[in-house]
Amino acid sequence: MTTDFRAELLASGLLVESSVDGLYGRSGTFEKVVRGIDDLVTSAGADQHAAVLHFPAVMPRLVLERSGYLRSFPDLPGSVSVFEGDDDLHVGLLERLERGENWTELLTASDVALCSAACHPLYPQCSGRLPAGGRRFEVFGHCFRHEPSLDPARMQAFRMHEFVYLGEPDAAVAHRDLWLERSADLLSGLGLAVETVVANDPFFGRPGRMLASNQRAEMLKYEVVCTIHHDAHPTAISSSNYHLDHFGIGFGIESANGDVAHSACVGFGVERITLALLGAHGLDPDAWPLAVRSRLWP
Amino acid sequence: MTTDFRAELLASGLLVESSVDGLYGRSGTFEKVVRGIDDLVTSAGADQHAAVLHFPAVMPRLVLERSGYLRSFPDLPGSVSVFEGDDDLHVGLLERLERGENWTELLTASDVALCSAACHPLYPQCSGRLPAGGRRFEVFGHCFRHEPSLDPARMQAFRMHEFVYLGEPDAAVAHRDLWLERSADLLSGLGLAVETVVANDPFFGRPGRMLASNQRAEMLKYEVVCTIHHDAHPTAISSSNYHLDHFGIGFGIESANGDVAHSACVGFGVERITLALLGAHGLDPDAWPLAVRSRLWP
Repeated sequence: MTTDFRAELLASGLLVESSVDGLYGRSGTFEKVVRGIDDLVTSAGADQHAAVLHFPAVMPRLVLERSGYLRSFPDLPGSVSVFEGDDDLHVGLLERLERGENWTELLTASDVALCSAACHPLYPQCSGRLPAGGRRFEVFGHCFRHEPSLDPARMQAFRMHEFVYLGEPDAAVAHRDLWLERSADLLSGLGLAVETVVANDPFFGRPGRMLASNQRAEMLKYEVVCTIHHDAHPTAISSSNYHLDHFGIGFGIESANGDVAHSACVGFGVERITLALLGAHGLDPDAWPLAVRSRLWP
Repeated sequence: MTTDFRAELLASGLLVESSVDGLYGRSGTFEKVVRGIDDLVTSAGADQHAAVLHFPAVMPRLVLERSGYLRSFPDLPGSVSVFEGDDDLHVGLLERLERGENWTELLTASDVALCSAACHPLYPQCSGRLPAGGRRFEVFGHCFRHEPSLDPARMQAFRMHEFVYLGEPDAAVAHRDLWLERSADLLSGLGLAVETVVANDPFFGRPGRMLASNQRAEMLKYEVVCTIHHDAHPTAISSSNYHLDHFGIGFGIESANGDVAHSACVGFGVERITLALLGAHGLDPDAWPLAVRSRLWP
């Protein structure tokens, strides 16, 4: 995405920048679009009879450790440190702060980490044996990824709205495939010129290149991509993933027959979809085509 | 709040516990109430013509440093650490993780911290000279406070919905007083038995006792309190605060006449209000009194 579009978003007040790249405040208008997208995604999944869960931006650090995320993407997550000292250490902290020195050295690691993906805090809830047919969840979550960027489509803090299935392998693949089609339909129904592509995650380091190439070869990850602004590269605004037994192993989840559970999820990046709509239809949602507005705000 | 009420909330699925005290998932029903409260608070402030800003759960660490929060409440905030090493250090991290050793020592402090109060990320946006009459904002934010507790009214991660004024001292006091009355009316209109009390923040350590007593003596902070469950102590579900020139000094904000700006805010704790409603009217919002439902979901 060009810095021009970023400048337009900031000038319009839809996004408010901060002193850190990739952290923004959102206007009421921006959030009105977010709510419309969330409601539309919820409607699209009404037939799933999914249990709805909203998670905060932080989760137990144990979930990060078991998720495998530190193996594949160690550079992206955030761990939370806190002050556990007494009055004397507090005096020392304030002295360092005043002198502009490093005060964070006086902190200790807490048992809390930022969520990297909306569905991570869900998996420990499912440890043990699943019922026959598996389970379906609709998850609203906040993600943090430490990748400072001036591209508004690459925020450090953003929301993801997911539908997750846990259970049998066949049903997991079917969930991924159903939602791949459904998400492409939903997004093209909003007037977005989308395309569905095989994709890979941005795995870290040298070993990551092999992981990425395996993921593509096995076609585990599909993305719905869209050119958010006319002279930018296509960006993923939704992705559908088959995790094999990755989370089943990590969190001790079994399907009804006692095998390790497989899982799949579709994730809608609500900030990116909002940006794509603003790029396609203009910065004033009240002036968007009626067909789009009536879908978002029926 | 008794552990009985906590057990009821968990059994009903309204809250889903995690392995860390004070971190919960919320059900769709819980969030329906949250949305109703947010919409009602927004309506109550329609005459303020406030600029609306939604902030994510993380903000620049610089905001935490300038907010004064580390002086008064060093034990509550969270600073975010990230991995910035290479492939070799990554191998070391994974080895520590596998052996159950402390891998967080290999992280470095990022320039990001968790928000402690919804309005903190707003203040750096206002640095410089304010227009005549000051400025009003409606702020939606996520707060993190490291105070693990089994009391569902003391979550580590929760949301706050605020109206903030920055400008002249008299107008700041008037904002605080207006919203003190308005918030008590709004909350009692939801069938909650509320009371308005002079309050103090939980300042840290020995010097904190004096700060708390000064805050009470100057009557800077009022809380609307409510007994969330019948055999619990009253809990603040909203607070109205006059900050004097605290944030004006910290963030270099001047009123139109060049004096340091004063500020005031009202904060609605949406999780606590939701819990108070569940405690007062029962765990099934569809069975709440019509007068309450018609206010929340008109």
